[in-house]
Amino acid sequence: MIEIERKFLVVSNDYKKEAHKKNRIVQGFLNTDPFRTVRIRVKEGQGFLTVKGMGSENGTTRFEWETEIPVNEAEALLKLAEPGAIDKIRYDVQVGEHLFEVDEFFGENEGLVVAEIELTVEDESYERPSWLGEEVTGQPQYYNAQLSKHPYKKWQH
Amino acid sequence: MIEIERKFLVVSNDYKKEAHKKNRIVQGFLNTDPFRTVRIRVKEGQGFLTVKGMGSENGTTRFEWETEIPVNEAEALLKLAEPGAIDKIRYDVQVGEHLFEVDEFFGENEGLVVAEIELTVEDESYERPSWLGEEVTGQPQYYNAQLSKHPYKKWQH
Repeated sequence: MIEIERKFLVVSNDYKKEAHKKNRIVQGFLNTDPFRTVRIRVKEGQGFLTVKGMGSENGTTRFEWETEIPVNEAEALLKLAEPGAIDKIRYDVQVGEHLFEVDEFFGENEGLVVAEIELTVEDESYERPSWLGEEVTGQPQYYNAQLSKHPYKKWQH
Repeated sequence: MIEIERKFLVVSNDYKKEAHKKNRIVQGFLNTDPFRTVRIRVKEGQGFLTVKGMGSENGTTRFEWETEIPVNEAEALLKLAEPGAIDKIRYDVQVGEHLFEVDEFFGENEGLVVAEIELTVEDESYERPSWLGEEVTGQPQYYNAQLSKHPYKKWQH
């Protein structure tokens, strides 16, 4: 129930060539509070309800709890979500021994692409693909819950 | 997924003699917003996650979605809840053809006892037991989510 993840910006589209899977994800939030984020997700005909707690100081480690729920129930719960649904395509890209999940955002967050890698221990080493940019682990503006309220297109670029 | 319920104050302890079941309930909230309330409940060794939407104008009808979850996971999620856990004993009391659930609150809400009846249609008739007092259906201060933030002991009595 503790997830160790690092998050990065993505600097080219080359990850698309290397991806072995892609899924559309639509999600909304019943709470965007970083201490008790509640997310409803619909992903390729499956529904999920996920609760996340506050991240550690460096943002790498975070409590995460998830349960699968019937997709029609997830769709009903999405209607209760705060305004600002997240719509994205997730690419699964295997790089050496690690899986990167690369999210290409649409709608109000179009233009943003971020990659996440899940680790077993905080200081685990991993191979950096060419398309991996600046690390943004723990920067709240890149949390999907924050992106739903303050979408990327409205940032000062 | 739509619940029709009416809620009442309770004016005597006679419901305890008529009850056929009692269970201790401890619950906390991942969101107390009445548009998207998220409740974690532990009840006699079982865990539940419940989402409630906004009630109808008269407060009788409300979207409600619930899933059972492992009790140890419910306990972990309770730690993320907003301050103000609700601790109560629920008495199940059959009155004629209807079940009343009577909640006797403890801790910061001690002194408050409310009864709820679930109906099939809004204008369904039901038998009123002697201990049933004033109807408080739809009064937000009696929502458990509100009681967790503004407990009964702190009201102006």
